[in-house]
Amino acid sequence: MTQFSQLSDADFCAAIFDHVRSMSKDHEGVTRQGYGPLESKVLDYLEGIGRDLNLEIAKDAAGNVWMTLPGRDRKLPAVVSGSHADSVPQGGNYDGLAGIVAALSVARRMRREGVTPARDYRVLMMRCEESSFFGKAYVGSLGMMGRLKESDLALKHRTSGETLGECIASCGLDPKALTTGKPVIDTSRIAAFFELHIEQGPTLTSQKDARTGIVTGIRGNIRHKEVKVIGETAHSGAVDKQYRHDAVMAAARLISRMDDKWDEYLKRGEDLVFTVGVIKTAPTAAISVIPGLVTFTIDMRSLSEATCRAFHEDLLAEAKKLAEERGVRFEFDAPLFTAPAHVNEALADRLWESAQRAHLPVMRLPSGAGHDSAMLGNCGIPVAMIFVANQNGSHNPHEAMELSDFMKGADLLWHTVMDFDAA
Amino acid sequence: MTQFSQLSDADFCAAIFDHVRSMSKDHEGVTRQGYGPLESKVLDYLEGIGRDLNLEIAKDAAGNVWMTLPGRDRKLPAVVSGSHADSVPQGGNYDGLAGIVAALSVARRMRREGVTPARDYRVLMMRCEESSFFGKAYVGSLGMMGRLKESDLALKHRTSGETLGECIASCGLDPKALTTGKPVIDTSRIAAFFELHIEQGPTLTSQKDARTGIVTGIRGNIRHKEVKVIGETAHSGAVDKQYRHDAVMAAARLISRMDDKWDEYLKRGEDLVFTVGVIKTAPTAAISVIPGLVTFTIDMRSLSEATCRAFHEDLLAEAKKLAEERGVRFEFDAPLFTAPAHVNEALADRLWESAQRAHLPVMRLPSGAGHDSAMLGNCGIPVAMIFVANQNGSHNPHEAMELSDFMKGADLLWHTVMDFDAA
Repeated sequence: MTQFSQLSDADFCAAIFDHVRSMSKDHEGVTRQGYGPLESKVLDYLEGIGRDLNLEIAKDAAGNVWMTLPGRDRKLPAVVSGSHADSVPQGGNYDGLAGIVAALSVARRMRREGVTPARDYRVLMMRCEESSFFGKAYVGSLGMMGRLKESDLALKHRTSGETLGECIASCGLDPKALTTGKPVIDTSRIAAFFELHIEQGPTLTSQKDARTGIVTGIRGNIRHKEVKVIGETAHSGAVDKQYRHDAVMAAARLISRMDDKWDEYLKRGEDLVFTVGVIKTAPTAAISVIPGLVTFTIDMRSLSEATCRAFHEDLLAEAKKLAEERGVRFEFDAPLFTAPAHVNEALADRLWESAQRAHLPVMRLPSGAGHDSAMLGNCGIPVAMIFVANQNGSHNPHEAMELSDFMKGADLLWHTVMDFDAA
Repeated sequence: MTQFSQLSDADFCAAIFDHVRSMSKDHEGVTRQGYGPLESKVLDYLEGIGRDLNLEIAKDAAGNVWMTLPGRDRKLPAVVSGSHADSVPQGGNYDGLAGIVAALSVARRMRREGVTPARDYRVLMMRCEESSFFGKAYVGSLGMMGRLKESDLALKHRTSGETLGECIASCGLDPKALTTGKPVIDTSRIAAFFELHIEQGPTLTSQKDARTGIVTGIRGNIRHKEVKVIGETAHSGAVDKQYRHDAVMAAARLISRMDDKWDEYLKRGEDLVFTVGVIKTAPTAAISVIPGLVTFTIDMRSLSEATCRAFHEDLLAEAKKLAEERGVRFEFDAPLFTAPAHVNEALADRLWESAQRAHLPVMRLPSGAGHDSAMLGNCGIPVAMIFVANQNGSHNPHEAMELSDFMKGADLLWHTVMDFDAA
């Protein structure tokens, strides 16, 4: 309680954000590599704040930090809240950190208001959620669930070449212990996990009132890393339209038709996003040559696996039709499927009810990105998520969040934890 | 007349094609660089055939070879036919060479049938038509017209780094003499120039009967080397459709709308081709990122400058509309204009009439690519062109032409030269 005791809740949170930013600042934005020395230092700093708040500090075998405010009945499963401490390279300061600071602010408020909850309230600070350095996401939470694979540990750091296993070991941990298939914690000791996170899209920041979101689920996706359209290279001046097999024309038409179809899905009330993130003609393509080849990526996401699969079917059918219409060939690589992740509906309803009770304006919305919560949820832990309005997306140095928006989210977390504890 | 005297016309032509191919064969296709040693050797070989046919041999200051079968009245302006001797690297054997062989076959047939024409009949073998090595096309014919620029002579060979001027000088010529703005030949001495060339598209080879074409004009073009679409990069899962500014979606839509508009132009009977030869997202683009940038090229061609300009206006208007609809920005670099080149209509009509008289099935069609003929036409020489069906386009080693198709084109040239001479 020492240095923070005189601060308002908002100033307490702002001070932590500022300090962690100053610790992890790079030339642009912040960088906190999972299982790297800076993530460890930041966790040490945050641990110190927990110690000031007289929380019990523990680390699990995956290096995630648990800080407990003991409840009246220590046999009851705990209410847990938190998020991840790492960031992408040259990322923003709030992706992950906001959830830790919000969880800490709840503990501080308990201390300030002299509340001893019925259950243990635990702040969870996880490691290495971002995939940027090793190409593997949710490492800290998957490790906690014993679900890392040997092959994950062999993944190499994108610049240093060190393996993920070596990095985990360098934090004084045994990486092999995280690959047994069995959680390294007792999951039955968690009654609920609430994760507050910045929204990584613009929906909430486009709202006048409801700057806080209750996540309805995490979108699953179907992806193609490479779709090839193979047509026929020819002179751009000498070949009339009826003789052309233009790969770019066919690709553009497919993308536009799927864009139209996407509108139809939305009109029917289905959840769907669709992206062609990368497109390129062959290296030999030229301004005066009808392109015989173009490749592009496909990423479609929905809360509903059925919607994703239906849209994927539509894509294949449309490509087949276009191939016939235009005398080109489409080659789709093997689709990659990620199932949607469900939040615990009862728990999400509790968030909603607590918001109503406290007169906090909220809206329900899907999460387009994955989160540690989904890993915990997949292992039977009841999870729910709060989103906070932010600007400029995430995973970039321009990520921004108003402290006032953050405090609204933290307030909802406070009320929900209190209501849950009282129920 | 020596070694060829016993051969049929078709065998005579085939023998030349074969020999020149064997001289200029590379690992794939043929390579005959303009103003290079191999082009010189091929010209020497063809000159030898002219000598066998007892033609008068002369070279102009640009190194183009003129082989004359003297007419009865040597004061009359000559009828000239020919094409270029060079090829693109790893190109086909017929682009250019076919026009020289056809012109030679007419001279041979005059000799064989004992015809002495009223006017001189001249076979013209031009140098360096292709732009592949120096980035400059029509060098031999432009030089003949005195229309090369100092800056053209400074252009560097794409691999050796030698300048075009140095290559011209290495052929024993004075490159400066070709930059005076005045022709190095007496253009008034040419009554008509007929160029036979393979079609570089599939129109004729898709016809059952009319395997020979009469060129109606050479398409002009409007090009953009770079069109940028600037949107907003964002997470592909976290941003719903209404908040997106997806550069690829906007580009695909623009290309598809122009494809539709192109159909409308064709339905109205306008001549038009439209190509997006190169398209690519930024190097940082990724499967899970809404693309904030895509660049592409534009190439539109028509026999009618008005059609080209109207379609270009439509493109800009459509881009403006899309920019508003989708909250993206289009940036077009400065458009590059090339005016359509006209063939001499009266001369093209003579081709048509000669074809009718000789019962040769022909069709009229535009040329999408440029040709030496256009350079001569621009200096007031009456020019017309005959196209021959070929397979697999041109400028590639798979370029192919049936000898029987070639002989039909050569036959039309013969009849036209005879009819012109008799008129």
